[in-house]
Amino acid sequence: MEVVRTIPGTRAAIDALRRQALSVGCVPTMGALHEGHLSLVRRARSECDRVALSIFVNPTQFAPGEDLAKYPRPEARDLELAEREGVDLAFVPSAEEMYPPGSATTIRVSGLTDGMCGPFRPGHFEGVATVVAKLLNLLTPDRAYFGEKDFQQLQVIRRMATDLNLPVEIVGCPTVREPDGLAISSRNAYLSSDERRAAPALYRALQVGAEVIARGGRGGQAEETVRAALAAEPRFQVQYVEARRPDTLKRDDLPGPPMVIAAAVYLGATRLIDNVIVPQRNPG
Amino acid sequence: MEVVRTIPGTRAAIDALRRQALSVGCVPTMGALHEGHLSLVRRARSECDRVALSIFVNPTQFAPGEDLAKYPRPEARDLELAEREGVDLAFVPSAEEMYPPGSATTIRVSGLTDGMCGPFRPGHFEGVATVVAKLLNLLTPDRAYFGEKDFQQLQVIRRMATDLNLPVEIVGCPTVREPDGLAISSRNAYLSSDERRAAPALYRALQVGAEVIARGGRGGQAEETVRAALAAEPRFQVQYVEARRPDTLKRDDLPGPPMVIAAAVYLGATRLIDNVIVPQRNPG
Repeated sequence: MEVVRTIPGTRAAIDALRRQALSVGCVPTMGALHEGHLSLVRRARSECDRVALSIFVNPTQFAPGEDLAKYPRPEARDLELAEREGVDLAFVPSAEEMYPPGSATTIRVSGLTDGMCGPFRPGHFEGVATVVAKLLNLLTPDRAYFGEKDFQQLQVIRRMATDLNLPVEIVGCPTVREPDGLAISSRNAYLSSDERRAAPALYRALQVGAEVIARGGRGGQAEETVRAALAAEPRFQVQYVEARRPDTLKRDDLPGPPMVIAAAVYLGATRLIDNVIVPQRNPG
Repeated sequence: MEVVRTIPGTRAAIDALRRQALSVGCVPTMGALHEGHLSLVRRARSECDRVALSIFVNPTQFAPGEDLAKYPRPEARDLELAEREGVDLAFVPSAEEMYPPGSATTIRVSGLTDGMCGPFRPGHFEGVATVVAKLLNLLTPDRAYFGEKDFQQLQVIRRMATDLNLPVEIVGCPTVREPDGLAISSRNAYLSSDERRAAPALYRALQVGAEVIARGGRGGQAEETVRAALAAEPRFQVQYVEARRPDTLKRDDLPGPPMVIAAAVYLGATRLIDNVIVPQRNPG
């Protein structure tokens, strides 16, 4: 595995692959790699000749007061895991390499960012859209892989890639969960053992909401059901529960799927998000 | 010359060039081609194996009340000129092809857009940055060519390409002028014959300002000199006169070059812009 820390180094490494007509799959991460990230690497390996993984804790996607300073950065362990999974190229830039003095460009995706995490994380999706565009322009992959756990992020990235005509396929991959249902996240490491025991109730509540939709209920009913289920866990402070159409992230008052039911809760000082997607039923 | 009107058609045409390892130069235009555009095409031809020209009157870069509806669109003549100049690929999309329903992404370059045309054309540079990013992602050129006449636009595009790590070299080309000094522009066609006779006074005034800088004067002095010179032509309504550092488009109070002196004036209903660049003197 080649580890590159500079933009020119990355361009040279990618150009070398391109000259051999090899396809490239890209997995952008903030490091602190877990089974969710590794599932993206495995999918990329199965679909592309070479896999490039980026590790960059992007400061511009943290809102003021968020956990930028304490976000875990176990770089040596991350590189070991990446190598073991067969990553070919690890791009590990510094913040200065990604945002040299004079940087002045931001990408905004409107509409999709109005609800869910958007209002609670000002500037977050601009930071995400901008850094992902940069990484995709640098790594010029054929496909880029993102987890469905950050569903709103995934849809924002899809929209951005389509709107800017980026020559890349954005691939969304299923959320990887612990045996008790908790969605795997780098931020789970912040949980105390008591909090960790309470955490799977988030996913259970979302599943109950998904049942409401699958049986032909409306988004508002599903949200009420999820809120009631979350209220049973006194450790949760609920930030939002929202049922929205997966493609547009819009609300409407029509019953049934397709729907994404998403929630954010605080468990102590730790913010957890999760979602369940209820797909369109096959006609007939 | 191949004329393509769809995004998939353009990708296919560009992919075919790429498979032959041919370099591509790109000249994005709004059509109504004139000697300025053709000079860009000639430069691209001299530096690249193949030249792609786009013709698209981008609605998102016109501020409300501007001349979007009346902007000239002589497509047949444009294609004839492009073919005659040896353009290989003409991309002529509709607004629907470039902005299908659901489009929601915009690119903003801050700082560089604070002065000069920025305050007078709200949304203009966002429209420019966004459409140029789209065109560059579609045409994936090695080099893209823009005129120095739209100097602020050129610097915004350079900044955007650098910040988003676009794998392209942005090439700025000298302003092409009529024999009497008027910068060639598609909007010159709006001028009455009286206005046309008055128009070259804009460039003459900017040249007087450039002399002030070249002799070691400050930006503010150059601006005063240009304003006084413009006042001698009663048909001009001056929108701005600004002396700024070329790279950053910032003001400062230090004397001498490098400097760009730019102005916008109305001549009847027609808005004209022009600029003169005073380069850094070679040391010694």
